[in-house]
Amino acid sequence: MSELVLTTYDWVPEPPRGLVRDLRVRWALEEARLPYRVESTPFEDRGVGHFAHQPFGQVPWLTDGDLSIFESGAILLHLGERSAALMPEEPRGGTEVVEWVFAALNSVEMAALPWVLFQFSGQTEGPAFQMIDSFLRQHRLQHLEPVLAGREWLAGRFSIADILMADVLRMADRFDGLAGFPVCREYVARATGRPAFRKAHADQLAHFAAGDEARA
Amino acid sequence: MSELVLTTYDWVPEPPRGLVRDLRVRWALEEARLPYRVESTPFEDRGVGHFAHQPFGQVPWLTDGDLSIFESGAILLHLGERSAALMPEEPRGGTEVVEWVFAALNSVEMAALPWVLFQFSGQTEGPAFQMIDSFLRQHRLQHLEPVLAGREWLAGRFSIADILMADVLRMADRFDGLAGFPVCREYVARATGRPAFRKAHADQLAHFAAGDEARA
Repeated sequence: MSELVLTTYDWVPEPPRGLVRDLRVRWALEEARLPYRVESTPFEDRGVGHFAHQPFGQVPWLTDGDLSIFESGAILLHLGERSAALMPEEPRGGTEVVEWVFAALNSVEMAALPWVLFQFSGQTEGPAFQMIDSFLRQHRLQHLEPVLAGREWLAGRFSIADILMADVLRMADRFDGLAGFPVCREYVARATGRPAFRKAHADQLAHFAAGDEARA
Repeated sequence: MSELVLTTYDWVPEPPRGLVRDLRVRWALEEARLPYRVESTPFEDRGVGHFAHQPFGQVPWLTDGDLSIFESGAILLHLGERSAALMPEEPRGGTEVVEWVFAALNSVEMAALPWVLFQFSGQTEGPAFQMIDSFLRQHRLQHLEPVLAGREWLAGRFSIADILMADVLRMADRFDGLAGFPVCREYVARATGRPAFRKAHADQLAHFAAGDEARA
């Protein structure tokens, strides 16, 4: 079994702490109980070596032996293939996980991320925000609500699809975006109540706090 | 080999024609020379049967025997597993395809789709558009440009990653979003010049034109 190394920034400003996407990978690794190390790459000076691993100059990336993988969705699918705790091995269960992985990232996050960016920047007036707000509520959360009412987890049992969906919804929940969608909110509480999430979250906060000290 | 059936709307208004996401699936099926049938679901009255296949009431979905799959990304990964013309079988090549699949959908489309929606709605003034416009250019296209300068296709040879990335970039190109990024533009021209794309695109236009006639 080759060594797993997760790379994230050495430091980030306060607002995104707890939301940087290395959290998704930490969470998956903790659920799977796979051993891993965390390394840092400079937030402020992103060099050629960084872009060689992550072509947009972002984080995270994961190395598994001499294989280097970027995009949290791709990393989680890779880990899912290494651990049945993250993805059922039967073909049908796997397909269900994969479709909900894409639904989380390409349908729900596609609406939730712009919504959250409007919240972060305080621009919650005007037609652009109204458009995305009503799209998120009417075309995404309103349809997710009955789906989640009928099941504990998206694809039969807990999987990488839940890590991604819960992380996306959690981001909106931080700005009360799940008001009126109690089932989505309970789902987020259920997912983020898992010990693996709590450890991943605490570890990310501690990692960036250590970055504060190194800069002081 | 079970029968593949692709379902899309029976009709859509003029503006999204040529861009509806069944195109991605048609393109992949044509590249792989897999036989398939196309079925229609009503655009205007989306019933319980529709939501059972696609929980957000959108299209496309694909059935492969008694397996039903939604999300174009998940459908293309499924087809990639059925055809080496869409995804190399070696583990490393597969991982490279998968990371670029997510990069297309979760990094590039996440920026390009809001940008295109602003264009469609004519709201290209104001701080919200400026923010997304500069994000798309500086944090996405500017980094993609050198990546694509060094290679014909994203992951060694043509794959589902190119279908998705080219489809996302093509949408921005329709509103001149690739101005200043000649390598991205050439990549789109190279991808959309493939016979499989041309057939998929013509078939989608013909499908919705037939919907016009049925409504007349």
